Amino acid sequence: MAIIVQKYGGTSVGSVERIEHVAEKVTSWRERGYDVVVVVSAMSGETNRLIELARQIDASPPPRELDVLLSTGEQVTIALLSMALEKRGCPARSYTGAQVQILTDSAHNKARIRDIDDERIHRDLEQGRVVVVAGFQGVDEEGNITTLGRGGSDTTAVALAAALKAEECQIYTDVDGVYTTDPRVVPEARRLERITFEEMLELASLGSKVLQIRSVEFAGKYNVPLRVLSSFEEGEGTLITYEVEGMEQAVISGIAFNRDEAKLTVLGVPDQPGVASAILGPIADANIEVDMIIQNVAEDSTTDFTFTVHRNDYDKAMVLLRNFAREVGAKEVTGDNRIAKISLVGVGMRSHAGIAATMFRALAEEGINIQMISTSEIKISVVVDEKYLELGVRALHEAFALDKDPKQETA
Amino acid sequence: MAIIVQKYGGTSVGSVERIEHVAEKVTSWRERGYDVVVVVSAMSGETNRLIELARQIDASPPPRELDVLLSTGEQVTIALLSMALEKRGCPARSYTGAQVQILTDSAHNKARIRDIDDERIHRDLEQGRVVVVAGFQGVDEEGNITTLGRGGSDTTAVALAAALKAEECQIYTDVDGVYTTDPRVVPEARRLERITFEEMLELASLGSKVLQIRSVEFAGKYNVPLRVLSSFEEGEGTLITYEVEGMEQAVISGIAFNRDEAKLTVLGVPDQPGVASAILGPIADANIEVDMIIQNVAEDSTTDFTFTVHRNDYDKAMVLLRNFAREVGAKEVTGDNRIAKISLVGVGMRSHAGIAATMFRALAEEGINIQMISTSEIKISVVVDEKYLELGVRALHEAFALDKDPKQETA
Repeated sequence: MAIIVQKYGGTSVGSVERIEHVAEKVTSWRERGYDVVVVVSAMSGETNRLIELARQIDASPPPRELDVLLSTGEQVTIALLSMALEKRGCPARSYTGAQVQILTDSAHNKARIRDIDDERIHRDLEQGRVVVVAGFQGVDEEGNITTLGRGGSDTTAVALAAALKAEECQIYTDVDGVYTTDPRVVPEARRLERITFEEMLELASLGSKVLQIRSVEFAGKYNVPLRVLSSFEEGEGTLITYEVEGMEQAVISGIAFNRDEAKLTVLGVPDQPGVASAILGPIADANIEVDMIIQNVAEDSTTDFTFTVHRNDYDKAMVLLRNFAREVGAKEVTGDNRIAKISLVGVGMRSHAGIAATMFRALAEEGINIQMISTSEIKISVVVDEKYLELGVRALHEAFALDKDPKQETA
Repeated sequence: MAIIVQKYGGTSVGSVERIEHVAEKVTSWRERGYDVVVVVSAMSGETNRLIELARQIDASPPPRELDVLLSTGEQVTIALLSMALEKRGCPARSYTGAQVQILTDSAHNKARIRDIDDERIHRDLEQGRVVVVAGFQGVDEEGNITTLGRGGSDTTAVALAAALKAEECQIYTDVDGVYTTDPRVVPEARRLERITFEEMLELASLGSKVLQIRSVEFAGKYNVPLRVLSSFEEGEGTLITYEVEGMEQAVISGIAFNRDEAKLTVLGVPDQPGVASAILGPIADANIEVDMIIQNVAEDSTTDFTFTVHRNDYDKAMVLLRNFAREVGAKEVTGDNRIAKISLVGVGMRSHAGIAATMFRALAEEGINIQMISTSEIKISVVVDEKYLELGVRALHEAFALDKDPKQETA
């Protein structure tokens, strides 16, 4: 029988009623003739409650003990879901990460999966049981409990799907799929039926926070078809796979955006080797994450260097950048913490010229000035004044006709 | 180095502040030069919270899954206590029942310990660590999580003390030891410095609910010195050991009592074999626990049969007994649900005549009528009208001079 791995996140199992609802969904898949393995997160709020307990004792508790603590969250859910399944006459068995043997390295709080022992799961499935596995956790070679870091339940599900050679890995969440952009900004935003792993990675990292990035990478690496669906509504969701020949592919899949950005520029930096690392070294040391980095060609033996950071890190980064400017005798430091980033994503971009031109024209027609541009193979990002964010996203959504189903257009 | 096993119950670890306090106590024992192994329960209220979650799904959830659920309670505590110890510069390591390997049978919800793997603990102790073990839980041969039943953390502690050949097993609780009787009834009640396992068993089963009965049996069987102390106050507590030659032994150790009893009598039952089991069979089938059973010699080929049950079961038992009486043509059924039981306990009783006489005289002097009498080797129990309970206990406490320290009396 074909195996389906399903993952239900914290909101989907956030109460006893919702766990009962998940049990209904699971049994309906079983009745359709699938062997089902379910991965669950902690009930929403539970992980934060546990972290708060730990923080009351120690602001940075020993990582090993934090994992022992946090792993109880999913353990509660697997037991409750198994009870709800058994009540429905559906034989079920729960397993912690340590029991199933999800073997990880020993990097507590951010462990990586090394191996999964699928023997026990196969045995249960053969006996007609649903197997319920605690997400987000594993065990190292010494038998210590580890966790994969927050949101890691998606990774557990994908890893299990890969190990079990599942037909599909279904990630149930509170949205019914991946959209062309945020429907709160563009009411015409359309649910995508399919999207490639690469596009999903770009969309996820750019702010459409539907899936854990690592789980998408993992699914791509092991070629596990990944489907995002709603726990609360019926529907096909969005299937994430590799690009398929002949697959009806839109040029652009979606528009991601991010309004929490700030940009910093140092003007008139001596154009010599080592400048970029001299600027970004102290920034990295201060644990500030840098998003875009832009340096244009030098002029008069000096250059201008710009990067963006999270808005919360703006003041800290500015102090560091001023120190740098003083040391190397740069001309000036400027910055703006009222900017936003808009990104077009699509594998079709590779083979279609003129995407950038269409994008820039659409923005210009709305009078939106582009402050920065950065591109990758399947993405074009622009930085604009924060106040133009919604207008810009809407203009692009229309310009690329993202509200229209590309299949119907072809037909 | 000598090993001490300490157990802290749910109230002692009921909040982060209390867990910090336990960490203080543990480090102070370590500074005194002991290797310390700590067993903890779930934070008070947590087990009930988890049971409530399960009940919302299923009134009688699958035992295997209930164990998966409940075992998270202690797992939270071991992590938090280890954090609190590490914060104090005291190296600590937490273990679940499955990790330490507390191997049990597969009787979920009421498993019994079969074996403990002490190798890992010894290794940690040698490396200067405090070992923190989740009480109340274990793992069966298949790797399934089991629990020992409520209150089973005491048993975990005693079993570990036996396996590790600990010098002492200390049970920290919210009382500072075992008393001659309940101080709420007799203000002069005195803390006992020592008591035997047998006396403790009689006192525990009779209502002085300081220790789990099973853990006392276990400690007696493996001759583990058991000490009951307060988590909240300083003091030596009460040491429970075997009777020692020359140990200054009072004749009577304590007075237990129970006010939740009801008695039922069937009069004029044909005196023939099988009567007792015919009466008690249906009672047992209805899951009603019987405490005292008394049958006196027959007269005119009929006999009277009396037993006591918990007051809550009185009505149910009465219906069953009336059915029985009708079937066998017994004369009459009577009952009283306003009775109380008072028991004198003491190993000294074995060798001292006249204890019973002193007891009955003391009660008679207060005008208290004795309704039933039952004796064992180290115990005499009487049933009296409920309203005389406090008066009777106080009269006996005084008659046997339990407020006086027997050692000082001898001196």
